[in-house]
Amino acid sequence: MTAPLRLGIAGLGTVGIGVVKIIRQHAALLTARTWRDITISAISARSRDKDRGVSLSGYSWEDDPVALATRADVDVYVELMGGTDGPAKASVEAALKAGKDVVTANKAMLAIHGQALAELAESTGCTIRYEAAVAGGIPVIKSLMEGLAGNEITRVMGVMNGTCNYILTRMEKAGLSYDEAFAEADGLGYVEADPTLDVGGIDAGHKLAILSAIAFGTKPDFDGIELEGIQRVSIDDIRAAADMGYRIKLLGVAQRTGRGLEQRMQPCLVPANSPLGQLEGGTNMVVIEGDAVEQIVLRGPGAGEGPTASAVMGDVCDIARGLRLPSFGQPADTLETATRARSELPAPFYLRMTLLDKPGALAKIATILGNSGISIDRMRQYGHDDTNAPVLIVTHKTSRVALDEAIAAMTDTDVMTAPPVALRIEHV
Amino acid sequence: MTAPLRLGIAGLGTVGIGVVKIIRQHAALLTARTWRDITISAISARSRDKDRGVSLSGYSWEDDPVALATRADVDVYVELMGGTDGPAKASVEAALKAGKDVVTANKAMLAIHGQALAELAESTGCTIRYEAAVAGGIPVIKSLMEGLAGNEITRVMGVMNGTCNYILTRMEKAGLSYDEAFAEADGLGYVEADPTLDVGGIDAGHKLAILSAIAFGTKPDFDGIELEGIQRVSIDDIRAAADMGYRIKLLGVAQRTGRGLEQRMQPCLVPANSPLGQLEGGTNMVVIEGDAVEQIVLRGPGAGEGPTASAVMGDVCDIARGLRLPSFGQPADTLETATRARSELPAPFYLRMTLLDKPGALAKIATILGNSGISIDRMRQYGHDDTNAPVLIVTHKTSRVALDEAIAAMTDTDVMTAPPVALRIEHV
Repeated sequence: MTAPLRLGIAGLGTVGIGVVKIIRQHAALLTARTWRDITISAISARSRDKDRGVSLSGYSWEDDPVALATRADVDVYVELMGGTDGPAKASVEAALKAGKDVVTANKAMLAIHGQALAELAESTGCTIRYEAAVAGGIPVIKSLMEGLAGNEITRVMGVMNGTCNYILTRMEKAGLSYDEAFAEADGLGYVEADPTLDVGGIDAGHKLAILSAIAFGTKPDFDGIELEGIQRVSIDDIRAAADMGYRIKLLGVAQRTGRGLEQRMQPCLVPANSPLGQLEGGTNMVVIEGDAVEQIVLRGPGAGEGPTASAVMGDVCDIARGLRLPSFGQPADTLETATRARSELPAPFYLRMTLLDKPGALAKIATILGNSGISIDRMRQYGHDDTNAPVLIVTHKTSRVALDEAIAAMTDTDVMTAPPVALRIEHV
Repeated sequence: MTAPLRLGIAGLGTVGIGVVKIIRQHAALLTARTWRDITISAISARSRDKDRGVSLSGYSWEDDPVALATRADVDVYVELMGGTDGPAKASVEAALKAGKDVVTANKAMLAIHGQALAELAESTGCTIRYEAAVAGGIPVIKSLMEGLAGNEITRVMGVMNGTCNYILTRMEKAGLSYDEAFAEADGLGYVEADPTLDVGGIDAGHKLAILSAIAFGTKPDFDGIELEGIQRVSIDDIRAAADMGYRIKLLGVAQRTGRGLEQRMQPCLVPANSPLGQLEGGTNMVVIEGDAVEQIVLRGPGAGEGPTASAVMGDVCDIARGLRLPSFGQPADTLETATRARSELPAPFYLRMTLLDKPGALAKIATILGNSGISIDRMRQYGHDDTNAPVLIVTHKTSRVALDEAIAAMTDTDVMTAPPVALRIEHV
């Protein structure tokens, strides 16, 4: 039997403790599947004394994750602290420089520094694995990088932030306002310390940037994502969408276009009866389209101790079994710089406007849309108060650029009493 | 750059030609992802002269697949002929003995001879890869064997035969009888030369046997599957199921129980609004449950040139990249012989009976069920002709053994005018 694979684990939150539990409970199973023992040499976390519900006395302790990452008795450094920079990045760099493979769940670090880290890893003959960074327990990185390696990938899309999906689901199901649903999610511990990471779409954007890099052979380009959070989605939008057979989801899309790579992370309307539309709560879904495979859909828990630890352990088992790849599936120096294409592909859009309730208001709006070449598929006017009339329009396919021009023109009129809400409609 | 990976491809049907097309169209992409060229040295098929829509003149031709499999200029033997034994098995054995890795889509061969072939492969330092054998383009083998390697797998289930699903979908949507829907599928070329492979559940059973082996670390045990085809499913059953919110699917389930491994491939009722219930036509779905990951659901095309070739190429790329595993994920000599547990786990059942339309008939049936400890959840009696009354019963959870005893007792009465139909109800 091969020598044991010895881990050093930094970060003992939910995921870290989940990993420790799997290694202890499934020692025999893991050995059967990797034909070697998987052991933990040392651990590190912010607080040594905290009761984590599992005995950690058998493992060496390091206060400093950099020291942990470079220990002679550590073969693989498992980074589960999180954070774009700081100790996470410093310790991962130290591990790679010391010739250790790295397993991490750190989507922010990879989305921002992935290229540099991948280059560093290759320079020392190491690899970075990060299945847990995207869509929790779903083996989406492996499916995309390995299972679909024979495809030219044409599109990747997904609902990948459970917190946002929980908030949107609760707004619809319980009729809560955004603020009420947010407060509920926060009370349940679902929201990150910095809430904009979740509701601003940043966390989901990090995940999309990672998937894009693998799918299209480009350097991770988080800054190239058109990013919009869910903070402006109102209960009115949710109800109106439902009324027309749609649900609103924070949807990421990365897609090849004639002019480059389009990456979006935005609230979108999707058909309520589609697989994406039916997704509720913390469940994630990723759709991958390739020229040969057509379309595959992967669904599973996007977070939580067990599912995320499952993904970490998949990576650990890969390394234990000798399955090693460049961090983004191809040598880092062959990844291209993505050409950014901003929302080039036309789509139907949902438009919610609040108009002054006076004759000719709607005509002005309709004229502007017509002049912009945007035709109306459906229109609804809801009950109104004394001065304001809410109007919903679903357009035929148009470009976001044309729509934004029309919105600017509409905003310049004297008939709109609030900024309009425009959401893309995606038919998957 | 590493030396090219040279393939020998036997079988130039839909899938084989799909593989040839990908290798030609995506040469640069494949080289970028595997940092070596992937080439075809030689090919073999039954007919050399058939026009396959793609020029094959650049490849050496072998009439005999065994000769192809052992050529010095072949590194990987790609077997796409099919068949449990015969040339497929002979050539795969020859390839392994000659030290060649094997990629195949042959579910029958693996379900029946997988253990022996895996042992042979290991004895010569080779591997057999077979992503295309199960669920077409869905990377389910990879997800189960690698992505979820940190889990104790508790259950695997799936709809994995597109032909059966097409027939059942057409029966429901178009109100066709089984025979009409079968004839339609046959006319479209969806049915195997031996139709019982499809409608008898054998093809899907082969796939389940393979998934079970990987999931539970057991030798493939096709004979241990409780196998039932869809031939007895009638339009009456489909309508009655729909009436109660269910759809009928040929569903495979492999599950750990206290007494052993339960493997079933049977028509089942699933909730119409569940992911499995919504599956239509040739789309496949596999559900994997593990102690850490909870549940993941994978959906995609179960057959066809592109999707199946995509799966074959995933395996080819793995080998090109040096990603090699024992054929069932762990050394063949560590796979255990499965202890067979027959339908131990209780479930609700759907029962359709045709009773004589006379007083006391239903009472006799109800008494027998009661005496067998089977309680009734719902019952419906539909319009009847002069002498026969169709009666539907949904039971509370019971074991298949208890139900079979009750059915035997009911059949012994003088009130049943046709054999009853009993289908398990699975809530996923």
